[in-house]
Order: sequence, then C-alpha cells, then structure tokens
Amino acid sequence: MGMFPVFDLAYYIVSILYLKYEPGSAEVARKSPAASWVCAMLYCFGSYILADIFLGSCPVDYFQYNSHILLASAVWYLVFFCPLNLFYKCVAFMPVKLVLVALKEVVRTRKIAAGVHHAHHAYHNGWIIMIIVGYVKGSGVALMSNFEQLLRGVWRPETNEILSMSFPTKASLYGAILFTLQETHLLPVSKCTLICLFTLFMATSKVILTARHSHGSPFILIESWVCHLLFGSPLGSGEEEHHGSPTPAPVAPISPVKCKEDLGEGTRKRKSKKAE
Amino acid sequence: MGMFPVFDLAYYIVSILYLKYEPGSAEVARKSPAASWVCAMLYCFGSYILADIFLGSCPVDYFQYNSHILLASAVWYLVFFCPLNLFYKCVAFMPVKLVLVALKEVVRTRKIAAGVHHAHHAYHNGWIIMIIVGYVKGSGVALMSNFEQLLRGVWRPETNEILSMSFPTKASLYGAILFTLQETHLLPVSKCTLICLFTLFMATSKVILTARHSHGSPFILIESWVCHLLFGSPLGSGEEEHHGSPTPAPVAPISPVKCKEDLGEGTRKRKSKKAE
Amino acid sequence: MGMFPVFDLAYYIVSILYLKYEPGSAEVARKSPAASWVCAMLYCFGSYILADIFLGSCPVDYFQYNSHILLASAVWYLVFFCPLNLFYKCVAFMPVKLVLVALKEVVRTRKIAAGVHHAHHAYHNGWIIMIIVGYVKGSGVALMSNFEQLLRGVWRPETNEILSMSFPTKASLYGAILFTLQETHLLPVSKCTLICLFTLFMATSKVILTARHSHGSPFILIESWVCHLLFGSPLGSGEEEHHGSPTPAPVAPISPVKCKEDLGEGTRKRKSKKAE
Repeated sequence: MGMFPVFDLAYYIVSILYLKYEPGSAEVARKSPAASWVCAMLYCFGSYILADIFLGSCPVDYFQYNSHILLASAVWYLVFFCPLNLFYKCVAFMPVKLVLVALKEVVRTRKIAAGVHHAHHAYHNGWIIMIIVGYVKGSGVALMSNFEQLLRGVWRPETNEILSMSFPTKASLYGAILFTLQETHLLPVSKCTLICLFTLFMATSKVILTARHSHGSPFILIESWVCHLLFGSPLGSGEEEHHGSPTPAPVAPISPVKCKEDLGEGTRKRKSKKAE
Repeated sequence: MGMFPVFDLAYYIVSILYLKYEPGSAEVARKSPAASWVCAMLYCFGSYILADIFLGSCPVDYFQYNSHILLASAVWYLVFFCPLNLFYKCVAFMPVKLVLVALKEVVRTRKIAAGVHHAHHAYHNGWIIMIIVGYVKGSGVALMSNFEQLLRGVWRPETNEILSMSFPTKASLYGAILFTLQETHLLPVSKCTLICLFTLFMATSKVILTARHSHGSPFILIESWVCHLLFGSPLGSGEEEHHGSPTPAPVAPISPVKCKEDLGEGTRKRKSKKAE
Repeated sequence: MGMFPVFDLAYYIVSILYLKYEPGSAEVARKSPAASWVCAMLYCFGSYILADIFLGSCPVDYFQYNSHILLASAVWYLVFFCPLNLFYKCVAFMPVKLVLVALKEVVRTRKIAAGVHHAHHAYHNGWIIMIIVGYVKGSGVALMSNFEQLLRGVWRPETNEILSMSFPTKASLYGAILFTLQETHLLPVSKCTLICLFTLFMATSKVILTARHSHGSPFILIESWVCHLLFGSPLGSGEEEHHGSPTPAPVAPISPVKCKEDLGEGTRKRKSKKAE
C-alpha cells in the first residue's frame, strides 16, 4: 500500500502543525519565510535526512521527489499564511486532528520498518546499526531539535531529545528494536503482522494521549522497574522523570521543550495565539 | 577560462579580509593560530565543504588540491601576521579592494553555475537539489557562520544567515534558481550568456555597495512587494527587515552579525583596530 | 599485533573514566542512561565516527563490530553502575590507571597511523587530507567535545579543543604530520620504527603527566619559540597560553574544559564525588 499522497499528506499536516505550536514560529514565518520553510522541511523530511546522514549517503537525497516537497511546501504555506487562519483551524479541530495523528503513526511505523530493512541491506550483521537507523527514521526532527530551533534563532542547550525522550521517540526506539529482532529472525512473526500490531499500538496510544491532552507514556511502569533493576534508580522516580503520568492528573509546570509533541491542545492554542 | 590563480587569489584575499573584520578574530589568531587557520580555510573553502556534505561526498575532498590550500594559507599568514600590517593595509585600501571584490564575484558566479551543473549530473530531475547545491556553493561560509564563530569561541544563536539573509546570500539563491532554470532548459539562454550577465550584475552591485559602505540590497523593492503578496507582510517593513536602504542614508545601529559582509569600511577599520 | 580485546579494553576503560570525571556526568547517567550511553560511545568510538565523516563514508560504520560495542557498553555499565562503585575504584587506582593510560596511548598511535594510511589510500597526493584524518583519528571525541557536552545538556561555547589544544590533541597533530611524512617517503624510517618510537614517547609522556597530576605539555618550550618566530607572540606567553608548566608547580586556577584530559587525580576525585 503506497503512503503517497494520503498518508504522507497527513504526516506533513501534523508535523507542520507541531512546528506552528512552537513558541515564536509564527513570527519567524512572517519575518523570515525562508527560515520557516527550511524548518518545515526538516519537520517533514528530517527522518530521511538523518537516516541518509547516518548511512553516509547524500542528505538531500529525498529532495529529488519534487512532488513530495511541493506538497509539504503547500501544507506549510496553508498552515502559516492561509487567510483567516482557516486551514490551521480546520486541521487543529480535535476530531480532524485525531484522524491525522493516527495516519501519521501509520507512516512512522512504515518508516521504522523501512529504515531497519535499509540498514540490514547495507550491514547484514550490524543489528546495532539497524536499531540506530530505525530509531532515527522513527524519531525524525526530534533528534535534531536543538539545531532546528537554532535555525529559528532559539537555543536551548540544557535539554535535548536523547536527554529527555518524549513518547514518540521512545516508542520509535522500542519499535526499531522489535523490527530489528524480526529482521534477524529472532522474533518469530512476519513483518506484516508486526507492522500491523505496532501501527495499532502507536495510533491508539497517540490518539488517546492527544485526546487527553496528556504528555505521559504507556511505558512508564515498565521503564520504572527496568531502570530500578538495571541502574538502581529509586522506584518512585519514574513519574517525575517523565514529567507526568498517563492519567490526566493536574498538569505540573513543565519545561517548554519537553512537551513539544505531547502538549495539551489547550496550552498549545494559548501559546500559538500569543505567538501570533 | 581557469579561475586559478588570479581569481582564486582575489577570492581568498577578500574572504580572509572579511574574517579579519570579525570582532576578536585578530586576538584569536595571536592566541590560537590553529583555530584561526581553520576558520580561514572555512572562509575560503566553505562552499566546497558544504556542497560536498550536501551531496554526500567527502567533505575534505577539496583539500586534495594542495596548491590552493597553500595559497590560501599564505594569504591568511600575510593578512594576520605581516610585519607592520602592510599586506592588510594594501588590500583593504579602497581602490584595490573594489577590484578584488569584483574578482570575487566572478568566482562566486562560476561556483553557483558549477554547483547547479554538478547536482544536475547526480539528480537529473532534482531541480530542488540543484537550487540547494547552487545556493550553498554561492553562499559558502555564511551558511555555517554559527559554527565558524563557535570555532573562535563566539556563540550568537539569536541569528543566522537563513534567518536574516545578507545580499550575497540572497543573490546566490536567486542565481541558483536562474541557473537551475537554464540547466533544465526553462530559461532560453545559453549558459555563457547567463554567467556573463549574472557576473556583471553581482560585480556591479557588490562594488557599488562596498564603495558606498552600504549594507542594503537592490532586491529590496521587489522583495517587499512579493512578501506582501505571498505572506501578507506590511509593505513598509521591507526596509526595516533588511536593516538599511540602498541609498546611502545615515546608517542606523545594526546588529553585529547582520552586517558581516556589508559593513562600511570605516566601521570595519575601527572595529579591527579595537580588536588589535 | 591485534588491538582487540586487551588494548581496546584499556582504551574503553580510560575513555569512559574521563567521561565520569566530567562534572555532572554521573547525574546524567542516573537520570538518562540513554544519553550517558551515547556519550560513552562517542568517547570510545568518536575517532572512527569523525574519520568516517571526514572521508565521506557512513558515520556509524564502526557500529557493525557488535562485539566492540558490547564490550564498551559493558565497561560503561561497570564504570557508572557497578555496586559500591567497585569497578571505578579499581581502575581509578593510580598504578592500575597508569598501566591503562599507557595501553591507551598504544591504541592512539595505531589509530593515527591507520588514519593516515587510509587517507593515503583514498588521496595519493593529498597530504593535507592525510594529516587531517590522522589528527582526527588521534584526537577523537576531544574535537567534538562541544557537541558531546551538548548531549549531556552542557554548553560551553567560549572554548573548544582547537582553540585551546590539550596535550593529547597536540601530540596527535604532530604524530599525524610525522606519519604523513613517513607515508609520502619524506621521512626515511620504516613505519614500524616510527610507530614504536611514537608509542614510547606518547606512553611515557602521558604516564608521567598522569602520575604528576600535571596538565602541561612537553612541547611548551619549542612551541613558544616557534610561535614567537612565526606569529610574533611574546616569548614568555607560552606558559600562560597553555595554562601550566611541565614542572609540578603550584597549580593555578584553570578553566574547567581545558583540563579535561590532564586534570590531576585529586581534583578529579573531588569533582566526581561532588557530582555524585
């Protein structure tokens, strides 16, 4: 099943929506459309760029698909410059957004599987490389958020996506491990089944998290136990570490970067309104 | 017509002159010649390094041309360490400098054309890649100025060349678009004619801007209209956006980074004297 | 003579020991094991990653050697999470550490020679590229320390390894020059002899420097003279420039980054205790 154009369109829309949620991005788009466009391209194609860098091929390789770039550019234009902010209001409307978020996760899973397969092709026994490339394909721009922010004139060195992983990044890591196990025949399931199951899990989780305006993670309990066993971290610390719990508890004050992908809709709207 | 050694020499001299204009660079050269030399190499060969990175080949590829590197190193040594600052005073003398600046623009145009041609060779239909590579070949070190400054211990995250483009960067972008149109036969002129015309335009503009100590841009009126139509920016904002007008009006206080390539001679001399 | 596993093990242990000496790294390991692991991998394999980047091949290429990665990961786990901090106390015990440091220098010399040879294979006359690749292979993570620190949420833009070179970085540069001269047959010695001599010099120097808790450099006198002749720097400035003298004089207050590799044991212990 081809991803283009329906699924990819959803991916671009949600990605650029997250760019618009970033404080100050609307102002950057008005003052310097070029910088905003480059950031939008990083949001949409960051995973391809990073994977190409990690595998030593041409980082702008994906930019040969002119139609994909034009589609993403059109989405960028509509999200930032549509009269009356109409397009933004439509796609940020919760029911529409939930559908788009689910479609985005479909693309993410496919990308992880493709990344692992691609790395397997280049390094037959390099299962660490497979995990790295799958992870990078799933996480995309998040892994280079420091440099993407730098393009917009923002510099927050005190945190980054590896230091404090958000749910999609963590899930990409676990997904990359699963797909690597499948690719090396250590996991006795077919790739199709694994893609289906992982897509289901990701779509459900993200839709629930988005609907609940939560920035928690379903992994919190297991991680807490594993970290306790392996690294001797105290058992209760899991929740503080991940700045929130999966239940919609009263939201504690959080750092502005951490919450990038998992910010509640309400907070986001307020933020982007301020930015405008 | 070969660019080496006359045109390239002019390119190196003007590039390293701009490095010396940077506040603090003379002190860095005295305290840490290695860092200063690396910066000088980035100023001279940044466009090759960046284009090689973007096309996925070896970033130090150009360093195989030992004679070019040695010539640029000699220029670096003379500009920074010549007794009595004699070499610097000669090449920074306005009439000499204007000739060198004109020669530099000849090299820049050739680089843009070569970059577009190179990318066309690798990606026949990838006109976006052609524009990117041509742009990068024309802009050179400006696009990585944040990291070049970091080498000298300076960090200015609040701005970068994409966020606030200077005239040479903008001209490189427009030039890359023109040469891409020519390469894909959408612009019905021969490459020779286009190179001649674009060189003439660039040399004239830069010489006038340098002679007038101006940091404006001839594109300001057209850009202001296009931005108004496309992005709804207010019409008058063009001039403020670009921190100056093409007429030699009384110079407003400008940010130290913005004015890197277009700073008036007077200000520059004062600055570099302070730095010494 | 194969470097794996004895010499490589020593290399990993000393490298990750230096990571633990970094202020705040123990806390990062507890709060975000993933970031700490990535940093540890950069400390162990940074030289391969950088050399691959500079030669345009796949940066994660070395990660195909699963056993090396697993060994380094085991060392990382033992250094940071061993019960009672037992492993750390053993390897940081001075006599053990001196042996490990000597073994590490054996690996460093081999890496420089291999880097120069590799670059010579790709660029027969590119002796500048040979020096660059040999230098990068010898210096490793030091050259990307700014970005390695960024991973741990630390940002110190005011300095970097090129701006203020430590002894191992300088020695790598001089070693790379020597091996390049040998590879291009300008230095009439066999490669074996050169490797032996350089290893002896590096091991002796580093062991003496580590035993004396000194962060000086044996090159200080020669460098002071050369800099005076070439760059007109005042003769006495060598010692201030390099923040210390080779004799165990009363240690002056030094910048926290400069002393990374050459910090005295005592200061280090205090620092890492504070961090814990």
